[in-house]
Amino acid sequence: MSDSAVQVAIVGMGTVGSGVARVLLQHPERIARRAGRPVRLKRAVVRDLEKLRGVDVPAGVLTTDVAEVVKDRDVQVAIHLIGGIHPAREILLDLLESGKDVVTANKALLCEHGEELFARAKSLGRTIAFEAAVAGGIPIIAAVGQCMAANQITAISAILNGTTNYILTQMIRENRTYAEALKSAQQLGYAEADPTFDVDGTDAAQKLVILTQLAFGVRVPLEAFPRRGIDRLELADARYAAELGYTVKLLAVSKLVGGQLEMHVLPTLVRHHTPLAEVHGAFNAISLTGDVVGETWYSGSGAGQLPTASAVLGDLIDTVVGRARLTFQHLEIWNDTPPFALQPNDKVVSRYYLRFHVEDRPGVLADITAILGRNQISIASVIQHEATQPASAGNGHAIVPLVIMTHRTTEGHLQSAETELRKLSSVKQPSVRMPVAD
Amino acid sequence: MSDSAVQVAIVGMGTVGSGVARVLLQHPERIARRAGRPVRLKRAVVRDLEKLRGVDVPAGVLTTDVAEVVKDRDVQVAIHLIGGIHPAREILLDLLESGKDVVTANKALLCEHGEELFARAKSLGRTIAFEAAVAGGIPIIAAVGQCMAANQITAISAILNGTTNYILTQMIRENRTYAEALKSAQQLGYAEADPTFDVDGTDAAQKLVILTQLAFGVRVPLEAFPRRGIDRLELADARYAAELGYTVKLLAVSKLVGGQLEMHVLPTLVRHHTPLAEVHGAFNAISLTGDVVGETWYSGSGAGQLPTASAVLGDLIDTVVGRARLTFQHLEIWNDTPPFALQPNDKVVSRYYLRFHVEDRPGVLADITAILGRNQISIASVIQHEATQPASAGNGHAIVPLVIMTHRTTEGHLQSAETELRKLSSVKQPSVRMPVAD
Repeated sequence: MSDSAVQVAIVGMGTVGSGVARVLLQHPERIARRAGRPVRLKRAVVRDLEKLRGVDVPAGVLTTDVAEVVKDRDVQVAIHLIGGIHPAREILLDLLESGKDVVTANKALLCEHGEELFARAKSLGRTIAFEAAVAGGIPIIAAVGQCMAANQITAISAILNGTTNYILTQMIRENRTYAEALKSAQQLGYAEADPTFDVDGTDAAQKLVILTQLAFGVRVPLEAFPRRGIDRLELADARYAAELGYTVKLLAVSKLVGGQLEMHVLPTLVRHHTPLAEVHGAFNAISLTGDVVGETWYSGSGAGQLPTASAVLGDLIDTVVGRARLTFQHLEIWNDTPPFALQPNDKVVSRYYLRFHVEDRPGVLADITAILGRNQISIASVIQHEATQPASAGNGHAIVPLVIMTHRTTEGHLQSAETELRKLSSVKQPSVRMPVAD
Repeated sequence: MSDSAVQVAIVGMGTVGSGVARVLLQHPERIARRAGRPVRLKRAVVRDLEKLRGVDVPAGVLTTDVAEVVKDRDVQVAIHLIGGIHPAREILLDLLESGKDVVTANKALLCEHGEELFARAKSLGRTIAFEAAVAGGIPIIAAVGQCMAANQITAISAILNGTTNYILTQMIRENRTYAEALKSAQQLGYAEADPTFDVDGTDAAQKLVILTQLAFGVRVPLEAFPRRGIDRLELADARYAAELGYTVKLLAVSKLVGGQLEMHVLPTLVRHHTPLAEVHGAFNAISLTGDVVGETWYSGSGAGQLPTASAVLGDLIDTVVGRARLTFQHLEIWNDTPPFALQPNDKVVSRYYLRFHVEDRPGVLADITAILGRNQISIASVIQHEATQPASAGNGHAIVPLVIMTHRTTEGHLQSAETELRKLSSVKQPSVRMPVAD
């Protein structure tokens, strides 16, 4: 082991930063043993010097000025834990330019500016390690970028947002509405005061973009693939899904189909008793399939102070050891021509769960099934219960829910059918549709 | 990317070796891209030049003489796929001595001679990579040895043998006897003609020894911890377990309890609907807990040609890239004084499943429960069904099964109780006991 300590700085002492500092300060021998040399926390950049952080940082370490880290030539590795895009991007670039290797957990930044940041790091001979940016304590970046190197990854199917998985579990198991479940998530600290990016699918989609870049060598903008969150999911649909033998999960999927890449983040019906269906609470889980290894499966805490700190510190040790540099140099994220094109959305094949609000009168089911049939959509099952407290259409007819599970069809066919269905006076808006996982 | 190819040799062209050769020969561009330079299969050592291997190896590559690899200075990495201990050990040492880095899948060898082989490699400045030795396609060596580097691993609880898990699944789900399930496993190629090391727990125990060395820095000989296989498991016990809400799994456990290491490989009752209980068929699964990250979970194919080849090739790429060298140098397997002692067996605390064959007459249950009570063993539940076709004790009394689930107790108390119970004329041998997973 070398005696000379590596000097590191933490830029951003929020929840994760405080956790990283705590482990560094509580277990210096362990970290030194694993890194091959002592690791010294030289600087920690905070917003407010007075705010307590549940960790005793030695005198002189805290600063509010990120420039003190940037200009400090002794700091070799910067742990970049600033959220959002600006000034996170500019700070990360400054850290690279000043000759520091960077460990970051900022998925939004890597999703939006990863190409620029990675290219800049590469041209400067620096390293960006980002295990903590996707799925917290689950080493999925290492699995995709390193362990599965002999494989062409063929499919990723994952629960990448713990907050939404907690909310869905509450809705489905505890019979709570979305609003009640969200409130419980906020009380437990699983959801932030503004949970928008979690519940609307943005967070999961950002992580999927990073995994897709790594696994398929394709940079896909966030806007280029279907994305929907759980914020408009009704408890009724979770119940009908259960009746059909499925649970609802916010699934992030990226997979090769006929040489093209299919990608989406959508509330999805997952069959009961399959591994993804059995992931409950604030956990993440990833099914990763490679053409040599077959399917492999990873789960654990996708967020939280210590799981994320574990990933950050793993990256820090990798950086000090020198492994992160080799990994970064060999990542397949430098393709000038993407090896796979995105599959056109109308060609995507899936089974679908559909729920309509329909007038309870003769001929309605016949009209709907005729339209589906004309559009090559074959029906697997139908649920229409007698309405106990039906809404009224205002024309003397009650409004009742009609649930249809289709066999495999294309998104294109479904969209044509939906256009026709909207013209039926007996079908009220909005209707609901979710894909069904294979 | 460098233009100069790395020359590699495969020593042992059995199932896995042929799979490795196939991927190397079918995907040379992919491997070159990930390794940063072309990888050329220069030599492949076989036993019999005439035997077909489902792979077209170019002329001049096959040889029956391992010395041709050892003395070939151009071969930089040797893929060592010879089973057993001798001459596998001597060949591995020869490969190291001749200046080659080694990738191996031989868990028996690493379990028995890992200390010697690792020390020799280290002193020669060479690398041994061994991801494929434990849990095939699941990157558990990377997870423990690298990704979780910020953690003290606190517990490993795992299904490490796919053959036994297939047999158990057949017994429990298809209601087959052990012998029938074994036959089915052999027909499907999951079990070898001589399945001894799989079914008696040796294979799982060897893998646990390697994981324990890596996770806890302690070298534990195979004889030093309790090990039992499934070869004497009766279908009746699987059924009683199911009645109690549990399934039977061959669990390999290594965990810190009060600063000491508890370790065993035993058929174990695992509660229904927990992740380990839901691993069916020829799969492996590992629950890995770290003091920072919490619990993480990995599963996939633990054996088979291509999953194992994926791990071997991942190690090969790591070796060519230079990452394997850094990882090997920093593994915590070089402790002169082990950081943890094994917990004395009689101090191990667990719940237990017990089955006795008892005479069906008054007072028997009272005798047994009195002995358990005197030994501080508290009873959680009891099953005694009316026997429909009871065996006879030869003294006019029928012999019936009595199943008792205990609360937590020590192995020491249980052993004392068992000694007393053996003296009861109403309790016939053999009785059955299995621990219950936490």
